[in-house]
Amino acid sequence: MSAIHRLVVVGGVAAGMSAASQAKRRQPDLEVVVFEQGRWVSYGACGMPYNIQDPRRAIDDLVVITPERFRTQRHIDVRINHRVEEIDLAGSRVRVQGPHGDSWEGFDGLVLATGCRPRLPRVDGVRLPGVFVLHTLDDAARIKEYLQRDDLRRAVIVGGGHIGLEMADVFCARGLAVTVLKRSPSLPPGYPDDIGTLLRAELDKHGVELLSGITLLGIEGDDRVRQVHTDQGRLPADLVLLATGVQPNVELARAAGIQLGDSGAIAVSAGMATSATRVWAAGDCAEAYHRQMARGLFLPRGTTANKQGRIAGANASGASESFGGVLGTSVTKVFSLAVGHTGLFENQAAELGLQPAAVSIKAATRAHAYPGARQITVRLVFAPSSGKLLGGQIAGGEAVAKRLDVLAAAIQAGWTIDDLAGLDASYAPPFAPVWDPLLVAANVARKQVRRS
Amino acid sequence: MSAIHRLVVVGGVAAGMSAASQAKRRQPDLEVVVFEQGRWVSYGACGMPYNIQDPRRAIDDLVVITPERFRTQRHIDVRINHRVEEIDLAGSRVRVQGPHGDSWEGFDGLVLATGCRPRLPRVDGVRLPGVFVLHTLDDAARIKEYLQRDDLRRAVIVGGGHIGLEMADVFCARGLAVTVLKRSPSLPPGYPDDIGTLLRAELDKHGVELLSGITLLGIEGDDRVRQVHTDQGRLPADLVLLATGVQPNVELARAAGIQLGDSGAIAVSAGMATSATRVWAAGDCAEAYHRQMARGLFLPRGTTANKQGRIAGANASGASESFGGVLGTSVTKVFSLAVGHTGLFENQAAELGLQPAAVSIKAATRAHAYPGARQITVRLVFAPSSGKLLGGQIAGGEAVAKRLDVLAAAIQAGWTIDDLAGLDASYAPPFAPVWDPLLVAANVARKQVRRS
Repeated sequence: MSAIHRLVVVGGVAAGMSAASQAKRRQPDLEVVVFEQGRWVSYGACGMPYNIQDPRRAIDDLVVITPERFRTQRHIDVRINHRVEEIDLAGSRVRVQGPHGDSWEGFDGLVLATGCRPRLPRVDGVRLPGVFVLHTLDDAARIKEYLQRDDLRRAVIVGGGHIGLEMADVFCARGLAVTVLKRSPSLPPGYPDDIGTLLRAELDKHGVELLSGITLLGIEGDDRVRQVHTDQGRLPADLVLLATGVQPNVELARAAGIQLGDSGAIAVSAGMATSATRVWAAGDCAEAYHRQMARGLFLPRGTTANKQGRIAGANASGASESFGGVLGTSVTKVFSLAVGHTGLFENQAAELGLQPAAVSIKAATRAHAYPGARQITVRLVFAPSSGKLLGGQIAGGEAVAKRLDVLAAAIQAGWTIDDLAGLDASYAPPFAPVWDPLLVAANVARKQVRRS
Repeated sequence: MSAIHRLVVVGGVAAGMSAASQAKRRQPDLEVVVFEQGRWVSYGACGMPYNIQDPRRAIDDLVVITPERFRTQRHIDVRINHRVEEIDLAGSRVRVQGPHGDSWEGFDGLVLATGCRPRLPRVDGVRLPGVFVLHTLDDAARIKEYLQRDDLRRAVIVGGGHIGLEMADVFCARGLAVTVLKRSPSLPPGYPDDIGTLLRAELDKHGVELLSGITLLGIEGDDRVRQVHTDQGRLPADLVLLATGVQPNVELARAAGIQLGDSGAIAVSAGMATSATRVWAAGDCAEAYHRQMARGLFLPRGTTANKQGRIAGANASGASESFGGVLGTSVTKVFSLAVGHTGLFENQAAELGLQPAAVSIKAATRAHAYPGARQITVRLVFAPSSGKLLGGQIAGGEAVAKRLDVLAAAIQAGWTIDDLAGLDASYAPPFAPVWDPLLVAANVARKQVRRS
């Protein structure tokens, strides 16, 4: 394959800007053009709830690198407010709708980083003023502006995923009474009951009303939203946040004949190549290979987008890097509780025929001698026949995220719970008990392996 | 080997009580007798500094399980104030000095958990009132009682290891002016300059005077300590803490002809067996197998003592468990800085002929969007030829200990820095930047592997 001289990147947030930056760094003579349909690039989308929470912070505080800096310092031709409408693979060009009309732009390499978008419930009223999604920085700006009104008392959040739960915390902090509506009874999906109970207690403690097993039928209002209509009656609402999941933006790719995966996202090789020559895809629009499921999934994460984008950019500039895959690792802060998981939930492991077992333990996050310890619950999913560690879910008051990372490393390494029990974990009273909760859980799990 | 009916355990702190408890749990008809020369068993020795810091806490708050509870709930015959004076291997008996005189006690299995003791500097004055070591709970009680005096202004700590540094924090909190004397110029030993500088700055910020490259010549006083005499002059001192390292208690074992290792601690198999039949050793008196150095070291740690004790007890009751080994993992809190390491320092890796390289990065502990981020410095030691991760040192304001655990897992798994760079680490703004500092360091290190 001859060298690429002009790389076009479609989409300028995490994956797109990572790809552009990496390609330019490795091949400084490469012309790199990024088309971003919005007016922002390179912003910390996961930080939007915390920005909204603080009225004193400007929304563009979330921008990591401005388009100007990309142009002047990294010599990347970033064009905001430019939307790619069509990919002509045979002609090696894309049709771009900009502020001054349409144009065709040629490429010899193309990175698709078109991201994902909210999946809206199919009900009336989703366009009423005061009804929001939280996906782009413009969404965040609109919510933040609306929160300046002084006639807001009740927020209704539809969806109990990580955005819904994080925003429950934010709306409380902004002085609203908050109700979260969830269709499914379990919260969060896949989590064991003990962790679900902790999460419910944390919401309850902060006055968040959680209504499970409820279906949204419509949103009603006049000049702005006034109430939501559900299968169990109507609820007053001065603000509605729709946080009911996302779907990959694959229309451009599909129209160009680029292959999608079973998940609906763009199918990619380990090198982030699509089915089309010299076209790579990265980030939320692309599948993420799950190391344990051994297939591509639609698992949008900022971390994955950055890793995949970097690899797509490297490979577009001639490297041959590979993406090792994900474990679905996720963590969310809900008030003072952190909840997360890595690897397989029990039901996922069972679907793979792994006949999993699981143990849960409760422990303190610090030694008894050191003040300020919080509770932590660790659940390990494992194969009792082989002892192989399959997954973990953790909830607690501190040091949850990095303990999840230890489990992610253990799963990536293919460890048994014996291996985990033997970990030479760091210890000092401010940071852990002498038996770290992870090791306590591993020791409890070992007994089930021995018995089987 | 026929079953053991009477197990004698020498020493009743971490390793000894773990061994006793595990053996009894697995073989409930086993008679388990623990001889402890002091009056405390099963206490959290690493928590002593934090207890001393808080005048309101009773010192026996550090006791996890009392001798009475061991007797009544676990049916373990714990005898405090009993010192084993001699092991008669041929006669399968030990001579015990108790409050009422000497006696011979038979065993068919013996666990040595005799621990270690402070190595005192060979100078005059170490027995003066006001001169302390911090090793046992009685030591802690004595320090705490002495701190109630109202004529104390200056504490001098001899030694800049983890006990010395933790106690600098404690004595400051108790209102004393603190000077730390160190013989070696580097602080802590083996650490790279960037982390040493952070530590010095943290001590300085809290008014702790650190004098390096200085040798203690004597301790002087009258009814109590008044000053220390060094090769660079005299310093006033109302309290002196000697924290100049420890040595294993191996006299009993040596006199019985049990083999010691090169480190000076008792040589043990992976199953914690000594050279004598039916005699196991565990904890600070025994060697800890270092996974990377592939030999036994004297590396006293509470975590290792608990793990080894459990294995010794299991094997004494007929199991065949193995201790996988250590990586020398350690973490210490010094004021608001946590400092720790796992695996090999550069000089250790070089001694093993591994021709190491190292990179250091500085990063924030949280995403920019989330308030309260602290700085963290991550140094990775690796083999540039193979990319294999050899060690890590971390210092920072939060989430240091569990990041060390991720590195410990990575080293135990034999990872390359590519493997580490691919870790599906958890991410949410309160807990990490989107590229966790560990991954940033791995990405920087990768460039050196590629170039070599």
